[in-house]
Amino acid sequence: MNIFKSVDSIRSSCLACRQNGRTIALVPTMGYLHSGHLSLIEMARKVADIVIVSIYVNPAQFGPGEDLSRYPRDPERDIELCRNSAVDMVFMPDDAEIYLSGHSVFVNEDVMSKVLCGRTRPVHFKGVLTIVAKLFNIIQPDFAVFGQKDAQQARLIQKMVADLNIPVSIILAPIVRDVDGLALSSRNVYLSAEERERALAIHRALFSALALYRSGERDTGKLKNHVLNIIEHSQPNLIDYIEILDNERFVDVKTITSTALLAVAVKYGKTRLIDNISLSPAEGME
Amino acid sequence: MNIFKSVDSIRSSCLACRQNGRTIALVPTMGYLHSGHLSLIEMARKVADIVIVSIYVNPAQFGPGEDLSRYPRDPERDIELCRNSAVDMVFMPDDAEIYLSGHSVFVNEDVMSKVLCGRTRPVHFKGVLTIVAKLFNIIQPDFAVFGQKDAQQARLIQKMVADLNIPVSIILAPIVRDVDGLALSSRNVYLSAEERERALAIHRALFSALALYRSGERDTGKLKNHVLNIIEHSQPNLIDYIEILDNERFVDVKTITSTALLAVAVKYGKTRLIDNISLSPAEGME
Repeated sequence: MNIFKSVDSIRSSCLACRQNGRTIALVPTMGYLHSGHLSLIEMARKVADIVIVSIYVNPAQFGPGEDLSRYPRDPERDIELCRNSAVDMVFMPDDAEIYLSGHSVFVNEDVMSKVLCGRTRPVHFKGVLTIVAKLFNIIQPDFAVFGQKDAQQARLIQKMVADLNIPVSIILAPIVRDVDGLALSSRNVYLSAEERERALAIHRALFSALALYRSGERDTGKLKNHVLNIIEHSQPNLIDYIEILDNERFVDVKTITSTALLAVAVKYGKTRLIDNISLSPAEGME
Repeated sequence: MNIFKSVDSIRSSCLACRQNGRTIALVPTMGYLHSGHLSLIEMARKVADIVIVSIYVNPAQFGPGEDLSRYPRDPERDIELCRNSAVDMVFMPDDAEIYLSGHSVFVNEDVMSKVLCGRTRPVHFKGVLTIVAKLFNIIQPDFAVFGQKDAQQARLIQKMVADLNIPVSIILAPIVRDVDGLALSSRNVYLSAEERERALAIHRALFSALALYRSGERDTGKLKNHVLNIIEHSQPNLIDYIEILDNERFVDVKTITSTALLAVAVKYGKTRLIDNISLSPAEGME
């Protein structure tokens, strides 16, 4: 497994792969890898000859006062996990390699980036789309794999690829949950044991709403109230949102007629957790 | 010469070229081709095996009240000119092929797009960068050729390529002038004979300022006044700007110490003309 720090070096390795007719799948991450990431790597392995993992905590997607400085990092452990997962290349650039002095070009989405997490994190998706566009241009992968846990991010990346004609196939991987049901996230490490216990209300609420939906409830007001009641009992420090949106266009839905996304963001202590579930008659994305 | 209307069809032709080891140079245009465009095509021919001309009047780069609806078009003549210039492929998509319903992702530059033409055309460069990013993703050229007449556009495209790591080499071609000195532009067709006569003051002013600069004048206030006096004598309908900027960073310069860009935008009748000249001790880009 080769580890690359510079844009030029990984670019030439990728070029050599392509010239040898080998397909490339990219798994973009911010490191501090967990089983969720490893499931993305597995999925990448299934579709392409070469699997590349990028590990980069992208400052452009953190707003002022967010957790950029304390975001968990463990590059040595990440490299070990990649090696054990038979990753072919790891791209670990530093900030100066990614953002040239005076960087001023960004990719923006003007509609779907404004709802859900976009309300409280106004620069977040601009940062996400910009770094993903850059990684796509550097690596030029055939495929890129993203987790459904960050549902809005995944949808926006699909939208960017469609609107900008980016020649990359986007693969979405289902949420991976810990044995207690908490959706895996690098940020779970912030939670105290007691906060984590309370946070389990999130997935209980989502799956309970799915059961209610499958028993015939289509009124999103009632479904959201159901989720709200369960989460409120867990004494969250803040409920950022509980929303049910059209799965494609990310607009509010009153009565569910096609697949909808139930998405929540809740704070326990200082830790903001997001989770979601697909409300669909058949087996959903979960 | 093949003419393509759809993204998918030109994409597969480009893929075939690349797989055969042939390099591609793209010349993006809005059609109504003139000798300036033909000079870009010649330059493209020198650097690459395959020359592709895109002809698309991009609505996203026209603001409300600008000249989108009356922008001059003559696709048959354009195709004939491309054929005579030994262009290999022409890409002529319609709007529905380029902007999917609900298009919401754009490329923005936050600093250099705000000066010069950006002051009066606030959405223009967002539209330019977005269409160029799309064309680059569709064609995946090795080279793309732009004219120095649109100096700010050219600089912003260079900045986009650098900041987003786009794997395309940008080639700038010098301004082509008509025998009377007027910089070639598809918009020159809007000018009455009398307006055109007055508009010749623009290039006279630019070259006169260059002579003054080369005679030792480094004070940009004096140089701009010199340009202003000459242009004012031609009774323009509006002087949008007369600016001298650092050639790289596009910031105001008081005293010229390295290559500077003298750029103007002036209206004669309803027609807004832009022109520029590089102020440098040696032979500039002109």
